[in-house]
Amino acid sequence: MELGVGGSNPPCCTKIMSKEKKLKPELASGFIDRKGNELILKDRLIEIIKRNFQLYGFEPLETPGFEISENIGKFLPDEDRPMSGVFGFKDDKNWISLRYDLTAPLARYFAANENLISKPFKRYQVGTVWRNEKPGPGRFKEFTQIDADIVGTKNILADADMCILLADTLNKCGLDKNEFIIRVSNRKCFFGILNWLGISSERQRIATTRAVDKYDRIGIEGVTSLLGKGRKDKSGDFTKGVGLNKKQIKQITGYIEENTLYDTEGKENFPEPNKYAPLGQYDFLDPLYDEGQKELSNFFKNTRLSEFKNQIVYSPTLVRGIEYYTGTIFEANLLFKVKNQKGQEVEFGSIGGGGRYDGLVSRFTNNIAPATGVSIGLDRLLVGIQQRDNFWKNNKEIENTGPVVICVFDEKQIAQYNKLLLLLRSSNINSEIYCGDGSLKAQMKYADKRNAPAVILYGDNEIKSGTVTIKNLKLGKEASAKIIKREDWTNIEKTEELGEKERSKSFQITTKIENLVNEIKKLL
Amino acid sequence: MELGVGGSNPPCCTKIMSKEKKLKPELASGFIDRKGNELILKDRLIEIIKRNFQLYGFEPLETPGFEISENIGKFLPDEDRPMSGVFGFKDDKNWISLRYDLTAPLARYFAANENLISKPFKRYQVGTVWRNEKPGPGRFKEFTQIDADIVGTKNILADADMCILLADTLNKCGLDKNEFIIRVSNRKCFFGILNWLGISSERQRIATTRAVDKYDRIGIEGVTSLLGKGRKDKSGDFTKGVGLNKKQIKQITGYIEENTLYDTEGKENFPEPNKYAPLGQYDFLDPLYDEGQKELSNFFKNTRLSEFKNQIVYSPTLVRGIEYYTGTIFEANLLFKVKNQKGQEVEFGSIGGGGRYDGLVSRFTNNIAPATGVSIGLDRLLVGIQQRDNFWKNNKEIENTGPVVICVFDEKQIAQYNKLLLLLRSSNINSEIYCGDGSLKAQMKYADKRNAPAVILYGDNEIKSGTVTIKNLKLGKEASAKIIKREDWTNIEKTEELGEKERSKSFQITTKIENLVNEIKKLL
Repeated sequence: MELGVGGSNPPCCTKIMSKEKKLKPELASGFIDRKGNELILKDRLIEIIKRNFQLYGFEPLETPGFEISENIGKFLPDEDRPMSGVFGFKDDKNWISLRYDLTAPLARYFAANENLISKPFKRYQVGTVWRNEKPGPGRFKEFTQIDADIVGTKNILADADMCILLADTLNKCGLDKNEFIIRVSNRKCFFGILNWLGISSERQRIATTRAVDKYDRIGIEGVTSLLGKGRKDKSGDFTKGVGLNKKQIKQITGYIEENTLYDTEGKENFPEPNKYAPLGQYDFLDPLYDEGQKELSNFFKNTRLSEFKNQIVYSPTLVRGIEYYTGTIFEANLLFKVKNQKGQEVEFGSIGGGGRYDGLVSRFTNNIAPATGVSIGLDRLLVGIQQRDNFWKNNKEIENTGPVVICVFDEKQIAQYNKLLLLLRSSNINSEIYCGDGSLKAQMKYADKRNAPAVILYGDNEIKSGTVTIKNLKLGKEASAKIIKREDWTNIEKTEELGEKERSKSFQITTKIENLVNEIKKLL
Repeated sequence: MELGVGGSNPPCCTKIMSKEKKLKPELASGFIDRKGNELILKDRLIEIIKRNFQLYGFEPLETPGFEISENIGKFLPDEDRPMSGVFGFKDDKNWISLRYDLTAPLARYFAANENLISKPFKRYQVGTVWRNEKPGPGRFKEFTQIDADIVGTKNILADADMCILLADTLNKCGLDKNEFIIRVSNRKCFFGILNWLGISSERQRIATTRAVDKYDRIGIEGVTSLLGKGRKDKSGDFTKGVGLNKKQIKQITGYIEENTLYDTEGKENFPEPNKYAPLGQYDFLDPLYDEGQKELSNFFKNTRLSEFKNQIVYSPTLVRGIEYYTGTIFEANLLFKVKNQKGQEVEFGSIGGGGRYDGLVSRFTNNIAPATGVSIGLDRLLVGIQQRDNFWKNNKEIENTGPVVICVFDEKQIAQYNKLLLLLRSSNINSEIYCGDGSLKAQMKYADKRNAPAVILYGDNEIKSGTVTIKNLKLGKEASAKIIKREDWTNIEKTEELGEKERSKSFQITTKIENLVNEIKKLL
């Protein structure tokens, strides 16, 4: 793969490539480009979230994208699907993998540094994670997670803190309290039920959990198939089942259906935080179930002290798909419908979640290091939040308006244009001298495409008279929008008569150079 | 790889793992963890840089980590070394690679969207890049780059803008004007010399460029070997040479030695911006050389208008190793010695650079899209900047002091502690209720390790009397530091007589709850 940088051809000559077969400028499947305002907004959210994590006493950590494969394992919900998993490479020494979350690397970090760091260890991390899974609408192989974790305590207060932090953070990002909910359960309860049903093989317990986790997407029939012999999805892919017996399947699906009514109601009209589902029949059947209930009771005692007591609610059928959870589990969902780019409502999934994972660090060390954490799916939050009118009302300034463009009449006058540029930039106004090769008309078109608020015309006349001409593109655009929107706009006829050229002139002023910065600030 | 989450053991029990062989919590070779203040500082720099790029009229873009391998090719300087290159992965359809820079993906993006975007297209991007190369001290396989590029113009004003932007950005990040330099040259000059020497094979031209690029590290003898039969490095690795003849080698090394005096002097005492090296003997030998000189003259005409005219200097031996450059090339170097963690001065390399690449986009399209760009190596900049006293004087508040810790005497009083927590957090003070399982002594130790400015004691007495006790850890630490540093500290004897316990008490006040926030703000 060689570039046209030499041989008998000068390196500037790009034509030598044109005879060759051109590459298709495609993205790899499951990946996406992001641009403009969306990124300005993303930066804004990351800033808010980091600041809130610091406020709650967390410190930053940045682990690398790659880890030694066996150190992070693969505890993903979709392990049982074909072509699923992680991106792995063979190193000089080891197999290394791109992280699929920020939790497994944290366990490695804690174990490697346990003598140096505070216990409990409270850290946050913003990072990209990769999953080599089947991509779908809004589901990519690469996305940004923001995590906060507390490692080194079994205190349920830490779990409650995590949920309060999640709720507070979503709220500070711009979601109203009635726009999201955090569903909470405890893996011990579900595993207690599995104990009672005699499902003791590790493989079966995890596969059962994953099957139940898919209930929202595949319904009770789907779960029944997955718990039994297996299930073929719409695309024809077959997933092998857990192989439970009929009685076991009936008990589990019965549990879901009994309690899902509770959950389904919840989706429309979420229950009082303290209104537990009628789960009496499972009490005393298994001590692990009871332990989970006791932890939940302790958990809600703490969250009820917070201003988010109505957002943090019990959801008995929540099991979560990730393998490493051992106690409290929770998930944040939006309470409004999210639409895709075609305007269709979509199944959106959670925008964050987490739970307790008491066994992850002890893969490295004999010291016990129970832990609990939360993860926010930034990209999904971003999609959701952009669909709220309220949000945009409060963040009008995010509209990235592009730079003020100083037009180039004559390259010999660059020193003159440069003076204007320095005036603007030293006043913190985004600005540039047009640096392309186009005519004045092309420069106008460029400024328009950049969404520039104004262009500056500084020709011979202006230079001679110490003035500068400012063309207000923002006003021009607003007026055009109004003309289209409001037929009763007072000047419409007159304006149309004037024609495009004259009309645009009316948004143009010539002023003394010393007024330039003020005039630009006025129109911004 | 299964976790102890079930079977006959309760999922909370971590001991079941202890009999198994434990994993070593190692990092993959060539990767690193980063934490604490360094990350706060990194965020700060990213913020400054992004803001400055916006000020210069650039808009944000985020392309994914993976690209289809053939779309980004491999234009790295170290292609000729064993085990070098990129991280590649076989997809369902294609080979995909982790990007090794942000420029090749930009070319793909521009080609894919050329009808939608402004021309010239000015974008910035902050992103991780990966190189599967031999790691070394301070040289990792993963690092952060921040790029700004202008695609779609051959205007040399754009190249000048890039260098001014780079200088201004380094300055705004905290480097004084006398702490860095930007060396500039033009590939056309070097390729012109190669034309004149009859070196016309593409492979040889690129290999020659790469060999000369290594001059700083391997000296004239190293370059001579690389231009001839080859070179064995200290580790015993052999790199095959370019295979030039003796006359060619002599001319090239002669050119370096003649002009490197100029460069070497420059390192101590950089030349006047307009003081060109005595290169007259190459003029008129090759038109490409002359074209390069003309472009350089035009380039400096523009940079001389900026306040960084003394930082942007001509450096005739600069060739840069990346394959795709076609015209202007430049590189930013620090003018002070950087030390490693052992306090030894290290060969540091550049903290940023860039140039013109007119052939990269035309790999995808018949439309000509000349381009120029700059890339800042954030991680290196971070290392360098932290070694400047001046920088720390201006950024005292970056010292991440950790949260105010509210001690837990009795879990039943959580609701009371929570009231204090809300007071602090609503005043934007980083704070937390201790959430571990330790005694009061352990809580103190924790607060100390977290670098907490204060702990809050809110026991039965305080609760009854509406007061709160604040222990000022910051003052305590400063006093301890002083005791060690200054033997004449007035109270030292008295303080030592008091003993650790009493001494620490003197940094403790009890005050009404309504004064809590003010007292904490005072001590921060």
